Amino acid sequence: MDQTIIAALRRAAEHRHRFDARFAAYFDSLTDPAGGGALEGLGHGTFPARALELLRDMSLRGGKRLRVAVLYEAAALVTDQPSPGLTEAAIGIELLQTHGLVHDDIIDGSAVRRGAPSVPQRYRDEYPDRTGTATGLAVLAGDLAAFLSLRVLSGSGLPPERAAAMTAELAGVGATTVLGQFLDLERDFGPVPDLDFLHAVTEYKTTRYSILAPLRLGLLAAGADPAPYDDELRRYATALGIANMLRDDWLDLFGDPAAVGKSVGSDLRSGRRSYAVRALLTADLDAAGRALLTAALGDPHADEETLDRVRALAREHGVDRSLQADAEQHAAEASAVAGSWYDRWQPDAVAFFHHLPAWTVTRDH
Amino acid sequence: MDQTIIAALRRAAEHRHRFDARFAAYFDSLTDPAGGGALEGLGHGTFPARALELLRDMSLRGGKRLRVAVLYEAAALVTDQPSPGLTEAAIGIELLQTHGLVHDDIIDGSAVRRGAPSVPQRYRDEYPDRTGTATGLAVLAGDLAAFLSLRVLSGSGLPPERAAAMTAELAGVGATTVLGQFLDLERDFGPVPDLDFLHAVTEYKTTRYSILAPLRLGLLAAGADPAPYDDELRRYATALGIANMLRDDWLDLFGDPAAVGKSVGSDLRSGRRSYAVRALLTADLDAAGRALLTAALGDPHADEETLDRVRALAREHGVDRSLQADAEQHAAEASAVAGSWYDRWQPDAVAFFHHLPAWTVTRDH
Repeated sequence: MDQTIIAALRRAAEHRHRFDARFAAYFDSLTDPAGGGALEGLGHGTFPARALELLRDMSLRGGKRLRVAVLYEAAALVTDQPSPGLTEAAIGIELLQTHGLVHDDIIDGSAVRRGAPSVPQRYRDEYPDRTGTATGLAVLAGDLAAFLSLRVLSGSGLPPERAAAMTAELAGVGATTVLGQFLDLERDFGPVPDLDFLHAVTEYKTTRYSILAPLRLGLLAAGADPAPYDDELRRYATALGIANMLRDDWLDLFGDPAAVGKSVGSDLRSGRRSYAVRALLTADLDAAGRALLTAALGDPHADEETLDRVRALAREHGVDRSLQADAEQHAAEASAVAGSWYDRWQPDAVAFFHHLPAWTVTRDH
Repeated sequence: MDQTIIAALRRAAEHRHRFDARFAAYFDSLTDPAGGGALEGLGHGTFPARALELLRDMSLRGGKRLRVAVLYEAAALVTDQPSPGLTEAAIGIELLQTHGLVHDDIIDGSAVRRGAPSVPQRYRDEYPDRTGTATGLAVLAGDLAAFLSLRVLSGSGLPPERAAAMTAELAGVGATTVLGQFLDLERDFGPVPDLDFLHAVTEYKTTRYSILAPLRLGLLAAGADPAPYDDELRRYATALGIANMLRDDWLDLFGDPAAVGKSVGSDLRSGRRSYAVRALLTADLDAAGRALLTAALGDPHADEETLDRVRALAREHGVDRSLQADAEQHAAEASAVAGSWYDRWQPDAVAFFHHLPAWTVTRDH
């Protein structure tokens, strides 16, 4: 791998390690009556504390924490000094992610998340005879994560002006992301969506809170006003977000299960009109190909042999190559935007943003 | 009715009328590209706009808006000038309420809310063959209300210090209220809860966001720091909250359906351990009484005759009188706290808080 990409990944890993310890300490603080951040009401009954435990467990199971890396590197664009509020913003963004995943797992009926039972599944296991209650508890657990996400910044003791701006960003992107989740459901209704619609799903469901908001929050925490750079930050985020999602969808159809770390083909089996599935649906298939695709799409029990045949069909129609080419084009676009930042901002952090897109579209998991 | 109570109610009604127009204007502003408050992403697809429409419809169907009256009157304690941020705080609190009601209606499976189909029911009607999708859409609609609630204050253009303090209050009470919803579910599990547990349910699920937060937010908007009054504000809110909930639970068992505006007995039918149901469960019943109660409790189809018999049993054991006496005692306690405010704050607004408790425990709906 390119040395510049390796350097970017090393920086991301350092952010992840540092953040994970702080995230755990944050959860501790919620139950610590001596600290200033304790959450009143946790001491009553057992349900509130149990919900917090499940949220903690799922949140600390991690993932790549790319949002956190983007946030810290955005602050590093303008300062090498520690920025107050940066960790709180990272916790806020990751709690927003937790909120979204818990509710996603209700909506999709997913039993597994990050290699362990999902929060809704844990509640189903605990209340096997009361599925309504289990769903209700999972809805509430997700709600708790959402309010905690907003609470962490507003209780951070930041200068009020900065706290207000950062909270406004987080609340706004929270609302935006919910709209994205609606679009995510809508894409599977009615006629096959056009590419612009899938781009809108990507933008609102993922890009805004995973890339654009961390960029803005990092700059805000570092004391810089992101407004003058709004246009280029958006162009960078949008292009990187699409590149990243194209690669995700590519991996879900063509990826190596051993590397991906979970079974592939989930978009096909769930009938989700991912970029890859959409490309297949709009390809010039013959009758046999179309019959194969129609049978496999949305069949949760589609077997490996069927998946292999769909994959072969996709390759035959160039879906793998065109998807990857599109991903690389969007990645190059993002990279070009960041490339113009060397004149203005700290080179190490600019290099991170400059090389992140290339990694995104070559990663195998 | 006492003239002082009538005066308090008149003030509440004026707040409601003024607020309802502003709440409608707020929803308009979300879709108005010319204004500064438009919500990006609403223009894609149809699901986001539909969700907003359902939230708007349910939110504007109103209710008594006592939270709004408490908020405006709290500001009026210290100033008779318009307070910037007051309307935004009212909208935030009412959106928090909308959020809670939508998710409550999922959890309880309620088809009706405020005299019309609940949001989950609307989605079930729209997607009769896809109950999972309908539930998912309702979860997301509730989520959207939660983020909008926090967004409205942070985007209000208030002085940053005030915006930060008010947003912190709203985010904190949002989290607290979710904990209360967990406790609300927990009370129906395991042994019959003691009175302190029911008081905790009332405190966290209702009082904090319906009384205490509006009090604090009103003072904050008016430029007063609520911290020096924290203890008495809490005592007022807690006592009024319990009085109000005792009256609610009383009305649900002993109320006049024509006045209440909906069928009574819902706590009994759903098996909810309300104050009234708990009093019955811990009463010294004979075998026949216990059998009657056991059969009726949690039976959604319990008929009117059964309800009448349970009511008679409750009266026989003094449940109606003791519940009402407890409500009046807590109301008197709240009233006494507010009575001490005449020395310090504006008399008309103090009178509102002074007389509100008496109305709360005599209302018939």
